Amino acid sequence: MTDTAQRALAPEELREDPLRFGVGARVTVAVMSDRFVEVVLDALRRTDTTGLTVQTGDVSTYLGGAEPQLLRALTGLAETVAATGLHASITIHLSRGCPGEAVCELPGGAGPRAVVVPEGRRTGRFAAAEWALYPLADTAGAQEADHMRDILAAIELAKSNGTYRASEHFVTRLEGDLGDVIATALAGWVVVGRSVQHVTSHLTISVNSPSHARVG
Amino acid sequence: MTDTAQRALAPEELREDPLRFGVGARVTVAVMSDRFVEVVLDALRRTDTTGLTVQTGDVSTYLGGAEPQLLRALTGLAETVAATGLHASITIHLSRGCPGEAVCELPGGAGPRAVVVPEGRRTGRFAAAEWALYPLADTAGAQEADHMRDILAAIELAKSNGTYRASEHFVTRLEGDLGDVIATALAGWVVVGRSVQHVTSHLTISVNSPSHARVG
Repeated sequence: MTDTAQRALAPEELREDPLRFGVGARVTVAVMSDRFVEVVLDALRRTDTTGLTVQTGDVSTYLGGAEPQLLRALTGLAETVAATGLHASITIHLSRGCPGEAVCELPGGAGPRAVVVPEGRRTGRFAAAEWALYPLADTAGAQEADHMRDILAAIELAKSNGTYRASEHFVTRLEGDLGDVIATALAGWVVVGRSVQHVTSHLTISVNSPSHARVG
Repeated sequence: MTDTAQRALAPEELREDPLRFGVGARVTVAVMSDRFVEVVLDALRRTDTTGLTVQTGDVSTYLGGAEPQLLRALTGLAETVAATGLHASITIHLSRGCPGEAVCELPGGAGPRAVVVPEGRRTGRFAAAEWALYPLADTAGAQEADHMRDILAAIELAKSNGTYRASEHFVTRLEGDLGDVIATALAGWVVVGRSVQHVTSHLTISVNSPSHARVG
């Protein structure tokens, strides 16, 4: 607990500090190979996590910090796994605006954190993915029109960058360069986060699937 | 499209039919072994999916249907995978009250679907998991107190059945019998679904992890 935790923070202080605002990701890397231990440990070791708080667990690894650093780390981690050529499932859970578990620990509400959409990076690796995006505006009311508009904007963004493939039950199917797919999910989450404080997103990525056609 | 799709359905017709109400799951099974193809196909083949609509894809398998049949299928599938002794990650995405993708295709709103909490089944296999539960009450307002109360009730339920371990960033950590862990997630989703129409839940399960102490 720092000094500032002793007093009530102003909303802008809560929004400006990514860790206080609860900006982060949990990522699960499942490599479908007998060599999974060495591949996952090596990939985590080689990931640039500068500026992020990292906690590795048996179910997932937590990364906390600002959006551009998160995107860089998630793209790098997934790229290293994909480069092995092994089939893998990479599950990414993004969250903002609700540090803590069920009850957000943001006293009085911080309001939405508006940041620029972080730049993605192409990897040359193909990915198929399923994506869900949740604005959790408990006190919505007047905001409803805004976040439905923003979800549709996020899907439009996926259409314009070429990663959108289809609407499936409960999810949007994305396909394309692994870096573009991850950047699309981050972008949608950031865009909706401009009008809603608490936004989560879940992305399940498949790389090197035996059922994928090879894509350069 | 059936005859009934030609006319506007009454809210109770939308709520009573699990497929029309969008009750279902997407499940991704990632087996960390060179034998992943045969293990996953065998597990899917041996799962009792009576009464469910099943669509297998490269990222996940969709199961649509009523809550007890969903719980039976998810428990059976996970149990078969766990029984191989191979390390695996099983990701379950539950949804109710929003058939379709971003824009729920329930004209006018169907209201919450209240059902009894389905009975789980012990498997004798240990699991560790991370669980997130989302009431997506866009038109909340007065409902807010209700669904926060229901989320806390879902966590209390996990505490009372012994699967609750800890509050982590963005998730609740569950541990215990694999069947109890899955049943807890289904129960929370059903309980919150009594006051909120659209509820989703994401559960990432780890079985046979090298870092787990042997249980059971």
